[in-house]
Amino acid sequence: MSKLKVMVLGATGVVGQRLVSLLAEHPWFEITALAASAKSAGATYGESIAGKWHTPHIPSRIADFRLRDCVPGEDVRIVFSALDADVAGPIEEEFAGAGYIVCSNARNHRLRPLVPLLVPEVNPDHSALLKDQKYGEGGIVTNPNCAVSGIALALAPLHRCFGIKRVAVTTMQSLSGAGYPGVPALDLLANIVPYIEGEEDKIERETKKILGTQKKASAIRMSAQCARVGTAVGHLVMAAVEFQRPVSLEDAQAAMTEFRPLAGAGLPSAPAVPLHLSGNPFRPQPVLDANRENGMAVTIGRLRYDSAFGLRFTLLVNNLIRGAAGGAVLNAELLMTRGLLT
Amino acid sequence: MSKLKVMVLGATGVVGQRLVSLLAEHPWFEITALAASAKSAGATYGESIAGKWHTPHIPSRIADFRLRDCVPGEDVRIVFSALDADVAGPIEEEFAGAGYIVCSNARNHRLRPLVPLLVPEVNPDHSALLKDQKYGEGGIVTNPNCAVSGIALALAPLHRCFGIKRVAVTTMQSLSGAGYPGVPALDLLANIVPYIEGEEDKIERETKKILGTQKKASAIRMSAQCARVGTAVGHLVMAAVEFQRPVSLEDAQAAMTEFRPLAGAGLPSAPAVPLHLSGNPFRPQPVLDANRENGMAVTIGRLRYDSAFGLRFTLLVNNLIRGAAGGAVLNAELLMTRGLLT
Amino acid sequence: MSKLKVMVLGATGVVGQRLVSLLAEHPWFEITALAASAKSAGATYGESIAGKWHTPHIPSRIADFRLRDCVPGEDVRIVFSALDADVAGPIEEEFAGAGYIVCSNARNHRLRPLVPLLVPEVNPDHSALLKDQKYGEGGIVTNPNCAVSGIALALAPLHRCFGIKRVAVTTMQSLSGAGYPGVPALDLLANIVPYIEGEEDKIERETKKILGTQKKASAIRMSAQCARVGTAVGHLVMAAVEFQRPVSLEDAQAAMTEFRPLAGAGLPSAPAVPLHLSGNPFRPQPVLDANRENGMAVTIGRLRYDSAFGLRFTLLVNNLIRGAAGGAVLNAELLMTRGLLT
Amino acid sequence: MSKLKVMVLGATGVVGQRLVSLLAEHPWFEITALAASAKSAGATYGESIAGKWHTPHIPSRIADFRLRDCVPGEDVRIVFSALDADVAGPIEEEFAGAGYIVCSNARNHRLRPLVPLLVPEVNPDHSALLKDQKYGEGGIVTNPNCAVSGIALALAPLHRCFGIKRVAVTTMQSLSGAGYPGVPALDLLANIVPYIEGEEDKIERETKKILGTQKKASAIRMSAQCARVGTAVGHLVMAAVEFQRPVSLEDAQAAMTEFRPLAGAGLPSAPAVPLHLSGNPFRPQPVLDANRENGMAVTIGRLRYDSAFGLRFTLLVNNLIRGAAGGAVLNAELLMTRGLLT
Repeated sequence: MSKLKVMVLGATGVVGQRLVSLLAEHPWFEITALAASAKSAGATYGESIAGKWHTPHIPSRIADFRLRDCVPGEDVRIVFSALDADVAGPIEEEFAGAGYIVCSNARNHRLRPLVPLLVPEVNPDHSALLKDQKYGEGGIVTNPNCAVSGIALALAPLHRCFGIKRVAVTTMQSLSGAGYPGVPALDLLANIVPYIEGEEDKIERETKKILGTQKKASAIRMSAQCARVGTAVGHLVMAAVEFQRPVSLEDAQAAMTEFRPLAGAGLPSAPAVPLHLSGNPFRPQPVLDANRENGMAVTIGRLRYDSAFGLRFTLLVNNLIRGAAGGAVLNAELLMTRGLLT
Repeated sequence: MSKLKVMVLGATGVVGQRLVSLLAEHPWFEITALAASAKSAGATYGESIAGKWHTPHIPSRIADFRLRDCVPGEDVRIVFSALDADVAGPIEEEFAGAGYIVCSNARNHRLRPLVPLLVPEVNPDHSALLKDQKYGEGGIVTNPNCAVSGIALALAPLHRCFGIKRVAVTTMQSLSGAGYPGVPALDLLANIVPYIEGEEDKIERETKKILGTQKKASAIRMSAQCARVGTAVGHLVMAAVEFQRPVSLEDAQAAMTEFRPLAGAGLPSAPAVPLHLSGNPFRPQPVLDANRENGMAVTIGRLRYDSAFGLRFTLLVNNLIRGAAGGAVLNAELLMTRGLLT
Repeated sequence: MSKLKVMVLGATGVVGQRLVSLLAEHPWFEITALAASAKSAGATYGESIAGKWHTPHIPSRIADFRLRDCVPGEDVRIVFSALDADVAGPIEEEFAGAGYIVCSNARNHRLRPLVPLLVPEVNPDHSALLKDQKYGEGGIVTNPNCAVSGIALALAPLHRCFGIKRVAVTTMQSLSGAGYPGVPALDLLANIVPYIEGEEDKIERETKKILGTQKKASAIRMSAQCARVGTAVGHLVMAAVEFQRPVSLEDAQAAMTEFRPLAGAGLPSAPAVPLHLSGNPFRPQPVLDANRENGMAVTIGRLRYDSAFGLRFTLLVNNLIRGAAGGAVLNAELLMTRGLLT
Repeated sequence: MSKLKVMVLGATGVVGQRLVSLLAEHPWFEITALAASAKSAGATYGESIAGKWHTPHIPSRIADFRLRDCVPGEDVRIVFSALDADVAGPIEEEFAGAGYIVCSNARNHRLRPLVPLLVPEVNPDHSALLKDQKYGEGGIVTNPNCAVSGIALALAPLHRCFGIKRVAVTTMQSLSGAGYPGVPALDLLANIVPYIEGEEDKIERETKKILGTQKKASAIRMSAQCARVGTAVGHLVMAAVEFQRPVSLEDAQAAMTEFRPLAGAGLPSAPAVPLHLSGNPFRPQPVLDANRENGMAVTIGRLRYDSAFGLRFTLLVNNLIRGAAGGAVLNAELLMTRGLLT
């Protein structure tokens, strides 16, 4: 079976590099073009990413690609977008209008009613919205904000089984979530910055859209506080959850442990177990747990009874893989199995 | 006026060093003896603390003191205790029984019904419990856990003015809170450890005792999650507060800003303004804000409306000063002005 | 006695802020104007530096100054320059040509034969070159690179007493040496970058100029390797020194300890003891020793015999104070006492 | 062909864990027993290492081993020792005397005249000393100190081709080199400690022994200064080398690049290219280069002409693998191919 041709927009950034790395070895997809902002265009991909922090391994075949401009015209079916939000909006629309399926990591279109905001284990049926879009054969699907990717996944089985009323989350987000060059070292040296512009609103809105129906966001009341901390990869989240009715710890544990909605679906990037519950109270930790199941699984720690709210737990999500590049690839795999790429 | 003679138990640890430093220049108190565990006894104080991290400046007069054992016998009125919890319990009782007033930073006696757990701006009247203790002229007063010192101070004006129903706090606690040597560098290098043994329970119980009456803990429902992070000094706390009735942001701001219960009381260590509200969303930060008012003031950031819970804010408390050594000294000053040391 | 009016160019950067802070309380100088690049001009100084890392305390009188452009015209005698090297060259010349004495921290003019490159304890006589410059009443004096400020000071008494043949230095330079925003946090998180562009050449050339005569650089053979490390303030340097003849450890210690060439000179910013020799093998450390004598003294550790080269030692210099802002101010004080500002 | 049975002493420490991990998958060796200090004895290996930092993956077959005491008696041929230096001396002698071949990472016996201190690419012939030991069928071979493992490897081709006269090295050593728990986080937070007790002497002596003959240490004059820095794995070393005669940069590059003395020897753990020369001036870096060739290759950066000494370069060695566990395993492989294990 021949592979489906794909392209990556914004290929040189921290997320773009991971997208290229994941797609370079993908069993279903084949990268045939890479694009970036005009200032990189014309250089080879390898030259463009050299020296930009911690670049993943890129096969030389792909490192030799010349970077294109971000304009339609390539013979590909899927366009993965890791563009910055300040340019992603119109470029992604232009590609969709030209008949491409855009799998975007950018925030620009996530909250539009007809744009699926997908976590394949949670709301795969939202993908059907793609057909209602105005772009003909093209369309846009999105994956959520890096922190939301883990939060929505962790809340989904609890909400499905018991009905969530309110959630308070506090996030401790890694430096790579701010891209490269990102945060100045002086600001985070032995320090924490207790604010990330726009992040809390994204967490509150996106989580509700994902946990809702195709037509309507969930009525869960979400409250988020976000801090930037001096870790490299992996967003740590502490969550307090209030339910519509009392929930026992055992039932909550069972709901999370048994949550394997993609079992048997055959998506190559899907983790075998999306939520790993750790019994060690000192886990999860960014350094130790970010790469669980190649960065696609979320680790849950200290799930416990809370007399004030109901339940509390800690979660860790790999913000570059599950929360960005891997999420976009998993979305494309979902579209593939649902026949939405034909 | 001659100064009151005081002694420090556990003088060589991170908190003990700060106690000695604060008392060395105190207008009312005069250190005349220092004590530590048997293994240090006999050495000079200066020798015993040399090379133990970041020692504060200690006048040579005091650095030359020979360390005593932690047994009663000195001609002092107040005994400040920075002993480790694994030994503090019986030693502090022995001193109280021998007629000394013990101002303790240790957790051992904090939750006993007749032991005042004091934040002088919040519950100064609890100090009267001292007279009901069984120790005759002696007695024990305590200052709260380092994080609670900031949390109780921030919640007090809100609770007094509006009545708090529930609180969720997430703490990001500095390394100095674990003492020295404390946490291995490998564990916290570019990492977070999302658990501190026993800490959450302390935050929940101690806060309720402080915000309650002399006889009864408050009925506020508290929920805490605690992480250890790679900062040196200053615990950062993110709080969500639910009230018994709707509270406007303006009213909450006013309550916190106008909170100056010790104004005019003349306690030398009391900050002029216990709660500093910052308008900069990126503050407070441990590196920038921990030493506000010599480490005795708490900085509040991003006080804001929260649709899920009511109000949210961030606070920073200096865990070594307000949260430990400075808290103990302020307690002693309170006892002095209340005539409880005579 | 009225104070001499001075101005600061490049006042908003990390070094500029320290210059303003030091000059704000100076007994001889009075800031009457602050200038910065065109993009800041017009704003108040306080607004311009807000949120730029760790700003020092600036009196409100000065925080309210409106920033000017970097063009001559102010009624001041001394112009302190903390401009970036990419603009400093012609701007400083323009000010000198207009009759101002420029005390510059920029590297641009440091190696010109008639421009004094001064460390007042080491080569105060080089200041006389000012009269040979082509600028009439104006002129340019410079202070060295931040690492050189410490290296030249430490080598001076050794060279004077014993004659140095060769020196190898390895530096571990703090983040603030790269300015703000400077180095991305991702690059230095739990990491070291073993290269700082242009730095090694500066260390080799500037040290030789300072240790030479007015006419000729020293023949000492210098070899430098520079790394950027994750510290905030304070460059740590490890040095191996080969002498022209055997030197005993005792003689070297004595030469360094007794090195107080400015004693009695009355320069307000001069440290009482420029070189502090520590007997603790674990010192100096950036966190513990950078602020010795308000950041103007250098700490020397582990001065010892070395069978391969002669002597080895470690030194720490505060790169923002002694190595930049404080060095420029001390230079101006030297010019004052030598009658070069009239 | 059946595998040779081996045992690990000190299996629970940071180095011991890597030894077990490397041996668990080894094509020639099979772990049949693990031993540790008496306080761990009796527990399973998996239990004993749980929660001790960053444990490598250990197959469950081996995690289930019960820990033995460090006394002879097992039916194995090789005993790998990762014991602490304070106990390693007599225990290793006892095993050697009982007929076992001890491949030790401890420093205790390294400098004894008849104990091979081996870097297989550098001085494989020293292994023959094993036969001259007094232990009959047993014997002790050692691998060098973690920093020396990289230094000796980098210097070997230069010394062989051109004759080295003097070397100055400055090391910036990672936290894992101090074991676990090792250094307190407070000491290294945004800091450097410019001293590691005993390390400089080890570097000077061990390097000379390795680069010498079986009978006599090299006459190279070595000078080392060692700092502990806040990195996890990988010791960075800056070296200045003086030769007996002028050496061109090209010749030095060629000597290092062509240095592949084990090519064709078939040792499973030997890196294909022991010295990787990087053309990027910002490399090597601990985070990016420590795992080159599974941690067995050394990365060299900025090999360059130095007017003061001759040549300078930077190197990075993985202190846990090449500098410890991997070095011990490579030694055992060398003994195997030389027929010294029969």
